[in-house]
Amino acid sequence: MDKAEKALKIQPRIPGGFLELLPGDQIAFNWMFNQIKTVFERFGFLPIETPAAELKEVLLAKGGGETDKQVYRLAAKTGETDMCLHFDLTVPLARYVAQHRNELLFPFRRYQMQKVWRGEGPQKGRYREFYQCDIDVIGAVNMLTDAEIPSVIYEVFKKLRVPKFTIRLSNRKFLNGVLETFQVAQYSNEILHIIDKVSKTGIEVAREDLLQFGLEGGKSDTLLSLISFQGNLEEFLAISKDWQSIDGLAKDGILELEMVYNGMREFGVPAEYTKIDLGVARGLDYYTGTVYETTLDDYSQIGSVCSGGRYDDLCGYYTDQNLPGVGISIGLSRLFYQLKAANLLTEQPKATARVLIIRADESATNCCMQVAAKIRGEGANCEVYLEEAKVSKQFSYASRHGIPFVIVIGETELQAGTVTLKDMVWKTQEEMPIEKAVALVTWEQRHRN
Amino acid sequence: MDKAEKALKIQPRIPGGFLELLPGDQIAFNWMFNQIKTVFERFGFLPIETPAAELKEVLLAKGGGETDKQVYRLAAKTGETDMCLHFDLTVPLARYVAQHRNELLFPFRRYQMQKVWRGEGPQKGRYREFYQCDIDVIGAVNMLTDAEIPSVIYEVFKKLRVPKFTIRLSNRKFLNGVLETFQVAQYSNEILHIIDKVSKTGIEVAREDLLQFGLEGGKSDTLLSLISFQGNLEEFLAISKDWQSIDGLAKDGILELEMVYNGMREFGVPAEYTKIDLGVARGLDYYTGTVYETTLDDYSQIGSVCSGGRYDDLCGYYTDQNLPGVGISIGLSRLFYQLKAANLLTEQPKATARVLIIRADESATNCCMQVAAKIRGEGANCEVYLEEAKVSKQFSYASRHGIPFVIVIGETELQAGTVTLKDMVWKTQEEMPIEKAVALVTWEQRHRN
Repeated sequence: MDKAEKALKIQPRIPGGFLELLPGDQIAFNWMFNQIKTVFERFGFLPIETPAAELKEVLLAKGGGETDKQVYRLAAKTGETDMCLHFDLTVPLARYVAQHRNELLFPFRRYQMQKVWRGEGPQKGRYREFYQCDIDVIGAVNMLTDAEIPSVIYEVFKKLRVPKFTIRLSNRKFLNGVLETFQVAQYSNEILHIIDKVSKTGIEVAREDLLQFGLEGGKSDTLLSLISFQGNLEEFLAISKDWQSIDGLAKDGILELEMVYNGMREFGVPAEYTKIDLGVARGLDYYTGTVYETTLDDYSQIGSVCSGGRYDDLCGYYTDQNLPGVGISIGLSRLFYQLKAANLLTEQPKATARVLIIRADESATNCCMQVAAKIRGEGANCEVYLEEAKVSKQFSYASRHGIPFVIVIGETELQAGTVTLKDMVWKTQEEMPIEKAVALVTWEQRHRN
Repeated sequence: MDKAEKALKIQPRIPGGFLELLPGDQIAFNWMFNQIKTVFERFGFLPIETPAAELKEVLLAKGGGETDKQVYRLAAKTGETDMCLHFDLTVPLARYVAQHRNELLFPFRRYQMQKVWRGEGPQKGRYREFYQCDIDVIGAVNMLTDAEIPSVIYEVFKKLRVPKFTIRLSNRKFLNGVLETFQVAQYSNEILHIIDKVSKTGIEVAREDLLQFGLEGGKSDTLLSLISFQGNLEEFLAISKDWQSIDGLAKDGILELEMVYNGMREFGVPAEYTKIDLGVARGLDYYTGTVYETTLDDYSQIGSVCSGGRYDDLCGYYTDQNLPGVGISIGLSRLFYQLKAANLLTEQPKATARVLIIRADESATNCCMQVAAKIRGEGANCEVYLEEAKVSKQFSYASRHGIPFVIVIGETELQAGTVTLKDMVWKTQEEMPIEKAVALVTWEQRHRN
């Protein structure tokens, strides 16, 4: 092949802002995915999956703003279609519930773990394609559901074996109620927006910004001191004393926070994993009560790894039926890459196979296949090296893949009706009857959860 | 809300040609997905996942034709981007292997189960979004791999519990060799195209079409009789006798077919699940040796549920490195809908929860949560009905979801430290100690594979 022909090759690469893993990392990613899925199912959440594309008018019902700019439209050869890729799983959920509401049972507990797409500029930490893992309980009004959701979060992150984390709890009603008593409730979205950014902007900028919405002096001080509050229920009740005696939104918020905080204990979330953090405001106008964020205690740079809250009306754009609910979302791709960067990924095997069968002689081919079939029948993963290659090359394949066991079958073993089993970790090997080797290499995988 | 406001609601619906399932069916779909994945891993295939979007120049490297017309382009608000959604998993695999070839070990055994998109007209049975489940072994030259692939197919469809199926085997070399001896090898793509369509067009149209490529009279008869051949190896060797003595492509093809057919026996595929079917031509220019199709014996209208074959050069558009391989693809979405339509889906539970805990009295709330935590800790899925509702309504929720067990805890049980366990299938119920109920409802799920 001459230079001209070589130049015709297209450089194999993926678009910026998209992610791709080598198989070993993909195994670790899939392990996380499955752990999350398992916990969601433990709590009886039902799986749904929605198309990657929604109709433009459905997806952009809310209209305008950042969303419209970020959405990928689908175009055919003949021009743009009426479809867009979904940018989250909440809008598709709202559409799904509205569309199928007569076929669903409420409260509807659904989980959904899919890719979403956003036309972000491909800067550091901004992905154009990533997995979200969402749960929502639609049609739930009881505060017990607000308390159950954190127990799902707790079980998920325990199962993912991430370092110590804290579930941060707040309530939109409380802060909105405080704004009511300050008579600035009409600016609550703008004010909560300022609050939501305070960790980035700093308190002085926030104080400045609050002025234009009529919050100054003592009011501004009170608000800024409230939103910097982090503590347990007792401490929260102490600092919120002023509002507990006045009927109104603030009092409702306090009562809800109390119910959710105490409920979390009953649901098994230890107190040391829980904080009331009034700085958690979560989004602008979507959430109406409880809000959550989850952070890793020693890795504040990672930010919230799981966020959500309670909303009053999921499907308002599509149906008159009022459907309140509560839900959370885990940004799995981001979490994976951040745990990887911080060297916090739970170690996983780099191969799916637990054992590689090495044909030390061509006459052993059939025997190798039969032993492999036995191992698979016992529920373990097994690969036979099928190419013709020196035994040393086959061993090196097993070792570089991190396959923990190797079974060698050659002429000697074939005549004796045995195999040689080598433990690649401990570097020990032993000739033994086939059945014994099968039992040894399958035991662990069959009993793994 | 008045009429004008109601009219503002957007009708919740999905784009034509896209698919969406209710949760019960989604559970059945996910079960199939997981069964396939489990078998792929049993054989040591490694997972990879590629972005939904590829660069246009990468995806359309092969250029033009049907593909170009079917590809969805991604557009941002500012206009078309340089990205397209992938329309299969083979082109992304080729790009992946070429891009990462220095980090992969060969033979590279990968599985990949993802959605693909095609801008089809949304007619019956044509989907714009569907799952493909692919395995490929890249860098494999030994015919044993061609024999192993059908054993993966066999285990997959056994595990999916579909009705009796047949893996149909052919070899492009044999037919190409026959065309060589007929001195029409230069038209082999066109001729194989005619052959591939013969089941749709009928034999007379094919005979007519073959004329233009210099095949007439005896040659045409021989070819059409060959491609209608279906039988076992012995029968194939009998009808292919003429070509066994002449060195050339046809003889090579016969030898390969023989090796693969016999290898399949060693890999545990029963003879009654295997047929040599020379009518299987599979695609036009991609496959170069072994080709496979799989059909359900009593449901010929469903067509091939799993197809693939051997190719010489996977990554030719992206690298000079020659990478032969062999692989197959299962069109899972299509398979699911066709099994569903034919009432052949393996019955699955309609809920993820195995047990619903009913709070018969508010005082039992904490106890309910604790029992739920115990059941989940034992590895079973459990839901607590958290809304306030009459016991009868809670029972109806369990029964309509098909949750097999209900645990009721009310005042009586609370005082006695017991629960009432009801088997929703057998309609029997019994008051018993908590531990016994936990053991009973968790037993089956913990031991299920």
